[in-house]
Amino acid sequence: MNPSFPAKLPKPPYYAVIFPSVRTSTDEEGYQAMAETMTERASKQPGFLGIESVRDEQGLGITVSYWTDEASIANWKADGEHAQARKLGREKWYGDFALRVAKVERAYSL
Amino acid sequence: MNPSFPAKLPKPPYYAVIFPSVRTSTDEEGYQAMAETMTERASKQPGFLGIESVRDEQGLGITVSYWTDEASIANWKADGEHAQARKLGREKWYGDFALRVAKVERAYSL
Repeated sequence: MNPSFPAKLPKPPYYAVIFPSVRTSTDEEGYQAMAETMTERASKQPGFLGIESVRDEQGLGITVSYWTDEASIANWKADGEHAQARKLGREKWYGDFALRVAKVERAYSL
Repeated sequence: MNPSFPAKLPKPPYYAVIFPSVRTSTDEEGYQAMAETMTERASKQPGFLGIESVRDEQGLGITVSYWTDEASIANWKADGEHAQARKLGREKWYGDFALRVAKVERAYSL
């Protein structure tokens, strides 16, 4: 999957899940494979609108996924494979992270 | 300025400005200097809460700035030096970008 960047999204309102994270130096290969699998899996969920993800050379990353509504976010959180991926993230892939759920009220582009 | 990552923020609600951008290959030095100047200037504005910014080797970047309310965002948009920086961004530094204003409703961290 090679999503467009910036994501092409409908007009607001919609929801954003903002996920800044710091990678450990552990298991880059396993992490990359899981990140791709989860991006692809997320994109097939009901209510998924798009995703933007960037990570720099120091391991600082920001992923923003976009959803039609809160129910879609809750549904994706309840996905079993996603839950397992989050568990591995907490255990070995992320040194730190935050997760913020926000309602996008307005949007512009170049 | 070397902000904490993820940003340390108060409890929601607060506002996020999500800014995914694609750098041109033009004027890296000027761009970097302006990015630092604007981050520092933003951090002195009323209502500023924090900022997270990441750019990868391909030039894809996501910056998220956090604000207490919509009025603070409008105030920062009206800043003259910020307006001049945005003009240069549109003219030479960015090949593409989007800007999304969102109300953060809930947040978690590791």
